Amino acid sequence: MASTSPEPAAAGETNDPIHIRRLELSDHERGFVALLSQLSACPDLTASEFATRFAEVAAQGDDHVILVAEDPSASDLRILATGCLFVERKFLRGGGKVGHVEDVVVDAAARGRGLGLRVVRRLVEIARDAGCYKVILDCTPELRAYYARCGFVEKGVQMAVYF
Amino acid sequence: MASTSPEPAAAGETNDPIHIRRLELSDHERGFVALLSQLSACPDLTASEFATRFAEVAAQGDDHVILVAEDPSASDLRILATGCLFVERKFLRGGGKVGHVEDVVVDAAARGRGLGLRVVRRLVEIARDAGCYKVILDCTPELRAYYARCGFVEKGVQMAVYF
Repeated sequence: MASTSPEPAAAGETNDPIHIRRLELSDHERGFVALLSQLSACPDLTASEFATRFAEVAAQGDDHVILVAEDPSASDLRILATGCLFVERKFLRGGGKVGHVEDVVVDAAARGRGLGLRVVRRLVEIARDAGCYKVILDCTPELRAYYARCGFVEKGVQMAVYF
Repeated sequence: MASTSPEPAAAGETNDPIHIRRLELSDHERGFVALLSQLSACPDLTASEFATRFAEVAAQGDDHVILVAEDPSASDLRILATGCLFVERKFLRGGGKVGHVEDVVVDAAARGRGLGLRVVRRLVEIARDAGCYKVILDCTPELRAYYARCGFVEKGVQMAVYF
């Protein structure tokens, strides 16, 4: 599921001095995992576990981009929002690439400032610049209008098997 | 879209002497790209283009598995069905992994023999054995019942931006 906890649909662009950048190893100390726990079951990771997964993702270079939003004017520099894009390389569409957006979440205390929309739009731009022919995500039906504000249209249904 | 052209829902398991294996470089000569063209726009790839994409996918090891089905008793060894699984490494769920099933297609002349179901079930097994906590795919509403036969249940909606 791409996101179940971004922010209210009424959120709009603002003049927030928000900084959006790629995830860094030190974001383990800035509440990145706790933020994800607002989206899904998310036990904390030790520094070692976090570093291992960080290295695995980093090894994929621009094929796996995790963005985070922070407020440089805040006193604690907690991560306020995040979203992920990974690129799938296909044989169809002339060896085309598809961007998959996953794990979009905005901290409950920071919703309504358009942070999720800004993160998602940035991910879409990255996918387009990487040569993807499309970007897809899965969400709950309630979030259709939210993602429509980033240019997404409904295409199908998501199915899942849980182990 | 995971698949728009697998096979009729009435298809069942058979005693077909079908061999399911991972994609090989030589499958460019066995109609792999032509098979994908039954699913989506799919201009042919030169041997060089195919080899480049094959190497990119192979570099991901067991995180990107493409299965193909062939009939060893047939005279031409054309690829009859295919399906893809790639594994996404997350920070949530304790550093969990999610399997994504994509590009499931069965040759029009080979439908009704359960080949698509066998490929998808094998992909689900691979995902489970790899430690994924779930496997997801996107499909058209008409294919819900088909994928339910592989254990999938509807979870959400798929949204897309096309460039």
